[in-house]
Amino acid sequence: MSNVLAVDVGGTSSRAVILDRTGRYLAYGRGLAGNPISAGPEQAAAAISAAARAAVAAMPASSGPGSAAGTTVIALAGGRTHASTDWIATELTAIGVAGPVTVESDLLAMFCSSGSELDGYAVVAGTGAGAVRVERGGVVGTADGLGWLLGDDGSGFWIGQRVVREALLALDHRAPPTALADLLLVELGIPYTTEMANDGRRASLVDAVGMLYRMRPVQLAQFAPLAFAGAATGDAAAARILRDAERAIVHTLAAVMTKAVRGPIVLGGGVLARMPELPRRIEAAFATAEDVVDLRRVDDGAVGAAVLALRAASVAVSPATFVRIVETLAPLRDAETA
Amino acid sequence: MSNVLAVDVGGTSSRAVILDRTGRYLAYGRGLAGNPISAGPEQAAAAISAAARAAVAAMPASSGPGSAAGTTVIALAGGRTHASTDWIATELTAIGVAGPVTVESDLLAMFCSSGSELDGYAVVAGTGAGAVRVERGGVVGTADGLGWLLGDDGSGFWIGQRVVREALLALDHRAPPTALADLLLVELGIPYTTEMANDGRRASLVDAVGMLYRMRPVQLAQFAPLAFAGAATGDAAAARILRDAERAIVHTLAAVMTKAVRGPIVLGGGVLARMPELPRRIEAAFATAEDVVDLRRVDDGAVGAAVLALRAASVAVSPATFVRIVETLAPLRDAETA
Repeated sequence: MSNVLAVDVGGTSSRAVILDRTGRYLAYGRGLAGNPISAGPEQAAAAISAAARAAVAAMPASSGPGSAAGTTVIALAGGRTHASTDWIATELTAIGVAGPVTVESDLLAMFCSSGSELDGYAVVAGTGAGAVRVERGGVVGTADGLGWLLGDDGSGFWIGQRVVREALLALDHRAPPTALADLLLVELGIPYTTEMANDGRRASLVDAVGMLYRMRPVQLAQFAPLAFAGAATGDAAAARILRDAERAIVHTLAAVMTKAVRGPIVLGGGVLARMPELPRRIEAAFATAEDVVDLRRVDDGAVGAAVLALRAASVAVSPATFVRIVETLAPLRDAETA
Repeated sequence: MSNVLAVDVGGTSSRAVILDRTGRYLAYGRGLAGNPISAGPEQAAAAISAAARAAVAAMPASSGPGSAAGTTVIALAGGRTHASTDWIATELTAIGVAGPVTVESDLLAMFCSSGSELDGYAVVAGTGAGAVRVERGGVVGTADGLGWLLGDDGSGFWIGQRVVREALLALDHRAPPTALADLLLVELGIPYTTEMANDGRRASLVDAVGMLYRMRPVQLAQFAPLAFAGAATGDAAAARILRDAERAIVHTLAAVMTKAVRGPIVLGGGVLARMPELPRRIEAAFATAEDVVDLRRVDDGAVGAAVLALRAASVAVSPATFVRIVETLAPLRDAETA
């Protein structure tokens, strides 16, 4: 009766948890961000093995000799589209984790963080954005999650790029003034001047463009908070960006919704958490006379990765087991945010 | 009375021409593409010096000893915002081109390719997009040209990225079917199948996304022609992309227009050349009861770079001199396109 290892790989950090088959937490470790799209596959593998290694090292001595854990589930952006797990299985064997390794969608882990249901939906907007339909505990439908260049409509990158483009449009005299221009220049540390470059452009604009092209494109996501700041002051361009982002997210969710599958709609991701209007929009779009919308919010996929690891080890996760997982992992979260 | 060197640096190739002070062509050389934004500054410098070196080597022996050319003008995306010319002046001195070096906007060179006027406008959409207002032979106002990530509204990249995103939206069941999806899959050599990946996505979509992320982002410009192909078959998404691109270009031009400055409006760039509705739209936007719009179309900035090089050497370019430059350079273009 071996333990299980659950790794939740996020855009900010990666967390590995070892649990026994009753859902009781035994050890915990952290690694760096490991999204293979934004951080690259090498860094993803390094982040996952660092987190797993730390968890194995933290195992209590009382757990005795032998393999620290058998079944492993890694929850990762892109999930099951990673055809092979060779890239990480060798690493795990080296640190004493021997057994089957499964990679699951980070969106499925978010869904499973909300409860022990086997059917429902998750919609997530953080650095990226996407939605899934879950049936019998697995992903059967996916929408978006296509990355910063090709999709992720309504995500942090999507909002951040629009913030920057709207700010530059105003500085380039192609749009009315917007608070986003001032906010962007402050964020970049560029003084606003009326000075002109020698092609008839505002010098502040030329400086901002130069700085922005020295960043990696995905880093434009860091300007998403300016949309929330601008909208709070009543700026029209900022409010429009957020409204469009909310619409895009509802549209993505709609692409996986079907009347035949009921169940909770789980909301996740740092951008989505800052959209106060979104729950109302989702209700307006999907509630019917017979059916209210069971909306839930989760912080991450840590609990869900643990649920998926137990299921992968043939443990049926009952509501009671689910509550035990949540309770056992809660102190870790508190320790992190303290 | 030394000769002048004019280098027109484009997104496809760079061309260097040596002329005498009457505007008569003496020698010619070519180099690779040298847009410093899309190709990088090192490749830009290498492309310029290769073209200049080839032109110097092609100088007729009758031209005698001494410097092949004195004054040099390089027409380049970004133009005068390149503060220093040190990066290229050393290279030029090494190949026997000694004298002042000036970098000018590629849009100004496009404008000067159309005639000997000193006032007017140029609007260009190729891989990038932007507009300038020209007064007394120099750029006094610039709009857009902010590059693929931050601007270039209506450009080849802008259109190509929208083509790809619209195609993927349809393959992802978030938009109605569009011919762009079929065209994209054909272009990528991916068979259309109804097969599903194990996250409930269409396998063709997963393959396409994988291939597209292995390209450099700017290479999405290569899909712009699919918008023209799709629109020709009556596809609504393709037609909408092109209509939005035309609107964006007219909007960019409007940002530099002022009643106080009349003169020709010069259209340039490979994308703009494929927009049959654009001249009518520009006329509708800018013609007045007193003033018709003097619209001209140019293929590139080669003639204009020569005009700018002569002016930099204190030669006043009369209409007669302008015609001599055009006539002297015409056989070169014919030889290239033959």
